[in-house]
Amino acid sequence: MNEFYQKDIISIKDFNKEKLEKIFTSTDKIIQLNSTDRREICKGKTLGYLFYEPSTRTRLSFESAMASIGGNSLGISDISSSSTQKGESLADTIRIMSIYSDALVLRHPLDGSSRFASEISEKPLVNAGSGTEEHPTQAIQDLFTIKKEKKKIDGLKIGIIGDLKYGRTVYSLLYGLGNYDVDVRLISPESLRIRSDSTYEIKKRLDFTESPHIEDHIDELDVLYVTRIQKERFPDEEEYLKVKGSYVVGLDLLNQMKDDSIILHPLPRIDEITADVDKTKNAKYFEQAEYGKYTRAALLGLILNKNGF
Amino acid sequence: MNEFYQKDIISIKDFNKEKLEKIFTSTDKIIQLNSTDRREICKGKTLGYLFYEPSTRTRLSFESAMASIGGNSLGISDISSSSTQKGESLADTIRIMSIYSDALVLRHPLDGSSRFASEISEKPLVNAGSGTEEHPTQAIQDLFTIKKEKKKIDGLKIGIIGDLKYGRTVYSLLYGLGNYDVDVRLISPESLRIRSDSTYEIKKRLDFTESPHIEDHIDELDVLYVTRIQKERFPDEEEYLKVKGSYVVGLDLLNQMKDDSIILHPLPRIDEITADVDKTKNAKYFEQAEYGKYTRAALLGLILNKNGF
Amino acid sequence: MNEFYQKDIISIKDFNKEKLEKIFTSTDKIIQLNSTDRREICKGKTLGYLFYEPSTRTRLSFESAMASIGGNSLGISDISSSSTQKGESLADTIRIMSIYSDALVLRHPLDGSSRFASEISEKPLVNAGSGTEEHPTQAIQDLFTIKKEKKKIDGLKIGIIGDLKYGRTVYSLLYGLGNYDVDVRLISPESLRIRSDSTYEIKKRLDFTESPHIEDHIDELDVLYVTRIQKERFPDEEEYLKVKGSYVVGLDLLNQMKDDSIILHPLPRIDEITADVDKTKNAKYFEQAEYGKYTRAALLGLILNKNGF
Repeated sequence: MNEFYQKDIISIKDFNKEKLEKIFTSTDKIIQLNSTDRREICKGKTLGYLFYEPSTRTRLSFESAMASIGGNSLGISDISSSSTQKGESLADTIRIMSIYSDALVLRHPLDGSSRFASEISEKPLVNAGSGTEEHPTQAIQDLFTIKKEKKKIDGLKIGIIGDLKYGRTVYSLLYGLGNYDVDVRLISPESLRIRSDSTYEIKKRLDFTESPHIEDHIDELDVLYVTRIQKERFPDEEEYLKVKGSYVVGLDLLNQMKDDSIILHPLPRIDEITADVDKTKNAKYFEQAEYGKYTRAALLGLILNKNGF
Repeated sequence: MNEFYQKDIISIKDFNKEKLEKIFTSTDKIIQLNSTDRREICKGKTLGYLFYEPSTRTRLSFESAMASIGGNSLGISDISSSSTQKGESLADTIRIMSIYSDALVLRHPLDGSSRFASEISEKPLVNAGSGTEEHPTQAIQDLFTIKKEKKKIDGLKIGIIGDLKYGRTVYSLLYGLGNYDVDVRLISPESLRIRSDSTYEIKKRLDFTESPHIEDHIDELDVLYVTRIQKERFPDEEEYLKVKGSYVVGLDLLNQMKDDSIILHPLPRIDEITADVDKTKNAKYFEQAEYGKYTRAALLGLILNKNGF
Repeated sequence: MNEFYQKDIISIKDFNKEKLEKIFTSTDKIIQLNSTDRREICKGKTLGYLFYEPSTRTRLSFESAMASIGGNSLGISDISSSSTQKGESLADTIRIMSIYSDALVLRHPLDGSSRFASEISEKPLVNAGSGTEEHPTQAIQDLFTIKKEKKKIDGLKIGIIGDLKYGRTVYSLLYGLGNYDVDVRLISPESLRIRSDSTYEIKKRLDFTESPHIEDHIDELDVLYVTRIQKERFPDEEEYLKVKGSYVVGLDLLNQMKDDSIILHPLPRIDEITADVDKTKNAKYFEQAEYGKYTRAALLGLILNKNGF
């Protein structure tokens, strides 16, 4: 029996290197299969999704992943139009959705929501983003992308730039990277540094440096992971305008990078990466989105098939 | 040819005992089939839904039922974003949806809407709730649950508690129960008693007593069917607060019930049943939700297959 | 290889008579196939839709077409709940959706949006309405309906009545009719005449007359194509009320028409055609809606199968 069968995917912290590599191997298999064979993997199975925060991108990634392996999806993408509006508890909503589907996907603003929901659900539950730190399938997608594009993860110099305070993506990625021997440089304006209450946990797994200046690191990086800086995060607009320019990745910055470095972004992007970077061989954020579909397909295939696929 | 083939499901009043039993038998068959065989029943068929009132619960029940028998669903769950916004008539919307699908599901606030729509539609139409009294598939689900959990319907003492004035579920259940030899106790605050204009119709089919006090009946009941009491139904909040407590089903009340009694609820629930009841063997409302999926699958399977399944 | 394989459908101007006839032939084949064979055409393929303007009708037509040929659909029907709300560019949204699907359907308010998007998309893109003039699949549906119901297009006298200024449907139909030898009469109030900046382009392909009076043409027409007149298009309500009555097609008007004339409408209809016309043998607008499903199925089948079907 494969170890993911009927298991919940709650936190990236639950994944060690071996587990991650197992998913990567299965993802490679998904990529290699022809579409007919691929559709046998979860033929006729149903994925139920519950989005308490809007995230069209993540929902469609799961839905297309499920379609690619022969399954279908149903659920609530906009919780405001649902029974929860009538005051139904999360527990009841989870119970009912687990009746309607073979596996659940949950997006929820609160920390711990997925853990709680998984204890209620009769079906395996996948966390599609919860609270301040957890977005395990995004982290898996990011790690797979690095592995695929750089042929390894160990030994890499990885810069993560932008808003490191808000945005669960960065935290999940850091916990995931904790399984590898990597040199991480966190680059952000002072006010958007990684939260101090998470630093201790991350430090246990990973060495990292912090700096506001990308120039200090740019020529050394193998991977540059870019995140959005949102204007509304800044106490005043003046401070925003002051830092904004320093965190836009354009051709000028790319030219200072190693020839075989790669640029990633969880998307959606606003203007953190200029459009002229898109066509360079270093830009891998659209490949990253595509790998997200495959990693999710692999994960769902493992969860829903006793002997894997 | 099976008698439901290409037939509309408009009103629970159109169902006699024999018809109900036919659906129950087919539902049992659905439950017993393995998922591969089940998906042959409506393979490649399309269910079109039109919800003029939001009801995520009912829509997902139909959608998951259709998926389980191999079909797919499409339609409008939120009529406000549709062509009807441009002033299109119900008749035209029904005509078009019947072109896009093999069977239709309609939810509409007006009495008679489903009858009207079924005369327009070229495809069989299933009423998913209309007007003040009709919710035939909910009634079938409720009756099947009682039958399944109590092994019979005839001879049972059934209490229905809560808001009996608003909410079509109770009316459809009473009309459905009219086919059986049951002893019904209606329990509600004075202001939420069953509507007097329906009493005559129901009396023709069924004997029932009315009382504001659950204590008068609690130790005799085989089935307690709980419904939501909505604050906004009360003329003033004081009256609401006065009655509210008396209609919450908790362990204290459950302890006064017969050991093998069951508690049902059409869901969503707010606080009419306390969470500690959920784990008791008497709580059957989540089973009821699951049976809803199977009864709808059976119904759709009968409607769309000439010789049944 | 069939000429539509992996091709974009951007503008009806790209279609000559031969191409149109090829689609008509394939549509006839779709109609003749039994549903099991039909579902083999795009078995397991995924259609991604992006609607930047609400159009439930068009979306469901594509979705039911895709379901009928064995495929599934996913996407964003209400762009306001999507990542574009976070400021994502159309280009990025298109790129991502093209990762999630085998073909794309785009509805967008701006002229040129589909052409732009098709250059970005890695998958074939079908324009489901853009800007002021383009709605190619509606035009194909309209032309197929005329051909099917009148057995020919060449030689027909075709009246188009209503709001000819706004509404891209009329423009696409006129460009499509430019491939045939037809006599076109445009009938509208002065303020809703066809836009003068389009007249030159249309004149190059087609002869037409313009008139505010349907009475001048009614007894000669083979086809009467009716469109909505929207109150909000008029500078003042008085003018609207003045013209409104003259553009309602009822039995009185139908009685002046040739016995074998047909009445079309892109739907939704408000009150431009009275309900008593629906039952006449001349009313073909619901057939037109059904043909829309088949023409879209044929088009998608051609785009997604190298050797056609």
